[in-house]
Amino acid sequence: MREATKALPAEPLDATALVADMGRRARAAAAILAQLSPEAKTAALNAAAAAIRAATPAILAANAIDLEQGRARGMKAAFLDRLALDAGRIEGIAKGLEVVAALPDPVGTVIAQWDRPNGLHIQRVRAPIGVIGIIYESRPNVTADAGALCVRSGNAAILRGGSEALASSRAIHAAMVQGLAAHGVPLDAVQLVETGDRAVVGAMLAAQGLIDVIVPRGGKSLVARVQTEARVPVLAHLDGNCHTYVDGAADLAMALSVVRNAKLRRTGICGATETVLVAKAAQAFLAPIATMLLDAGCEVRGDAATQAVDARVKPATDADWDTEYEDAIVAMKLVDDVDAAIAHVERHGSHHTDAIITQDPVAAEKFLAGVDSAIVMVNASTQFADGGEFGFGAEIGIATGRLHARGPVGAEQLTTMKYLVRGTGQIRP
Amino acid sequence: MREATKALPAEPLDATALVADMGRRARAAAAILAQLSPEAKTAALNAAAAAIRAATPAILAANAIDLEQGRARGMKAAFLDRLALDAGRIEGIAKGLEVVAALPDPVGTVIAQWDRPNGLHIQRVRAPIGVIGIIYESRPNVTADAGALCVRSGNAAILRGGSEALASSRAIHAAMVQGLAAHGVPLDAVQLVETGDRAVVGAMLAAQGLIDVIVPRGGKSLVARVQTEARVPVLAHLDGNCHTYVDGAADLAMALSVVRNAKLRRTGICGATETVLVAKAAQAFLAPIATMLLDAGCEVRGDAATQAVDARVKPATDADWDTEYEDAIVAMKLVDDVDAAIAHVERHGSHHTDAIITQDPVAAEKFLAGVDSAIVMVNASTQFADGGEFGFGAEIGIATGRLHARGPVGAEQLTTMKYLVRGTGQIRP
Repeated sequence: MREATKALPAEPLDATALVADMGRRARAAAAILAQLSPEAKTAALNAAAAAIRAATPAILAANAIDLEQGRARGMKAAFLDRLALDAGRIEGIAKGLEVVAALPDPVGTVIAQWDRPNGLHIQRVRAPIGVIGIIYESRPNVTADAGALCVRSGNAAILRGGSEALASSRAIHAAMVQGLAAHGVPLDAVQLVETGDRAVVGAMLAAQGLIDVIVPRGGKSLVARVQTEARVPVLAHLDGNCHTYVDGAADLAMALSVVRNAKLRRTGICGATETVLVAKAAQAFLAPIATMLLDAGCEVRGDAATQAVDARVKPATDADWDTEYEDAIVAMKLVDDVDAAIAHVERHGSHHTDAIITQDPVAAEKFLAGVDSAIVMVNASTQFADGGEFGFGAEIGIATGRLHARGPVGAEQLTTMKYLVRGTGQIRP
Repeated sequence: MREATKALPAEPLDATALVADMGRRARAAAAILAQLSPEAKTAALNAAAAAIRAATPAILAANAIDLEQGRARGMKAAFLDRLALDAGRIEGIAKGLEVVAALPDPVGTVIAQWDRPNGLHIQRVRAPIGVIGIIYESRPNVTADAGALCVRSGNAAILRGGSEALASSRAIHAAMVQGLAAHGVPLDAVQLVETGDRAVVGAMLAAQGLIDVIVPRGGKSLVARVQTEARVPVLAHLDGNCHTYVDGAADLAMALSVVRNAKLRRTGICGATETVLVAKAAQAFLAPIATMLLDAGCEVRGDAATQAVDARVKPATDADWDTEYEDAIVAMKLVDDVDAAIAHVERHGSHHTDAIITQDPVAAEKFLAGVDSAIVMVNASTQFADGGEFGFGAEIGIATGRLHARGPVGAEQLTTMKYLVRGTGQIRP
């Protein structure tokens, strides 16, 4: 680790100056990184994985400091568990880097090419975005995951993790950049903000021209702050209020299986279904679906029709249709048909992931076209909304904004494009 | 034209409320527009062209009002010429709509598709962005061009043109929406801000959630204001400080022809070359290139080497390397080699369009990879930086930002994407 990033300032921090300095160094590193061959980046990422494995004792020692400080501050057990590393988790981090190392390199990939009548050959190719700022909470693994995904896509990264995991992040970062540097990745390509001062977050959000895009990874309050304050573009999603609509032409066994998985496989992830809509033509399915969920320990908040099928169903209020529970709670409602389902999703959803269960291809295509979400599914669990499940290998999050990347943000989505035009002396008439 | 948009408020305008109302109506219209078939949009755009043709007398009468007011306010001749319409220019506007009508519809186009091992079929398809705000100056044709490109790409448009052309824009807009409506395009799909109050521009720039992206079309001061103030994402470019680098392995005849065209074909467009760099190995080309430009009436501001070849060459100052002249002026400099040329372009350029003239494929590929601009060219005039020349049919501008669209912004670039996932009841393990 270099001296310049080692010392913590004792006096009040000039966060703007700190970010400006990191941003300038990142920009210079990005220019070098953009020219590295796919093979060099692959070797560098594998070397980073090896360096992290080799640094296991140092990382565990640093993690012990974070855990001790966390306990002293009275952190909750769940929080401490998220922060805690052991040899197995560090091996998982190293393996994660190797997964990213094995991903196809997006830089230079030809997206489209064509010839013009005047003989000009035009190619649209992928190019790195430049400098990515990642703001996250206290999961130390993000330091390695996010840094690696940026390197794979040819971008410099400025990482700002939660102060509670600072010692752990610093140890992981030190090992990672040492491994990366062995294969030509500049030390400044992956920089860690080595202070917990929250002013740095504000400075990053305002760093137009220094940071090209911000990716927040964490809970809603973090994402909301980033989306509200940022002057730099943001790739993120705030809410994951996902729907599963059981159409009149649905297969009951499939509906039961998919709804159960979509709601209950993991209730805390952003692709979990929060509202189940059932078509009037499938009203007979209300009872088995509600009962299945209740029996599985899920609270059901329903409209009048749903309340009628099981005494355990609680009445839904207007707020329920807009709520992302992130818990074993579901809202249920009878709707007229697929058009009413689309209207409900468009009004109450968060444009993240929504699904229809149906055997009717016409209803399926109507739902796919009419629902304006990043991911629209037919006959599948909304919990598949995940970069890994899409085959991206790794993702840095899921975006619901309308520009640049929508859906899972993997290495490819961390690139921009440029046009390469090859001629033989053409001049414009 | 509807009554609601006809009356101009006599009392102080609540610009925020006006934009909020327009934005909500645009969002509702966008949802309908997004579902229209390609054929319906094509028919609507052709009907809009016909309606504009049929409204020629009304448009000319409105234009006469704008011109009279302009003359009364002492507008310059060049400005009045830009504002003036005649039957030929109106026919040009109508023809422009027909060109857009003939463009392939980007909405629903499959960008990529693949199958997952679990049988899920994933498609990435183009979808409209939603609501586009276009802020422009006093060219009345933009009202039709920009509105049409938004309709083609399934987006609602909120158009805010210069107040000097308001009567003309209103007449063109009235005819256009009448034609569009005949084929199911909602009246609110293309809305015109019917007041010259500049507060509306500020309200549009702040309209997060109402307007998805702003496209400014006009001079630097407009674009600079938009980029500085906007909270909504912006697709634009501020500067077009483009370079042509004559490599050591260049063909002299090609260099002379391409440099002349790149600099002088039209000096006011953003793709015009502003700086010519010449490699030391091609130092003998300095004299013929400088003399050719001088003889053609171009002012040449050169470094010492360039000054030495012709007495008419003026000394360049540091500021010249950073200047977009938009005039018959060029900066010229001798550089060591292709690496030095890349370094100069990266330091002083605006990441718009830059070209190398060379017969050496290695130098060409180095330049293509090393120059981080929206468009990088080999052996062609930088004046080809244009959506029409790229085969896009029509463009709304050229973007140099790093996210979403880079280079010419045509119908395709006014779309976002969504994922369609088709399964057979898959649940996530």
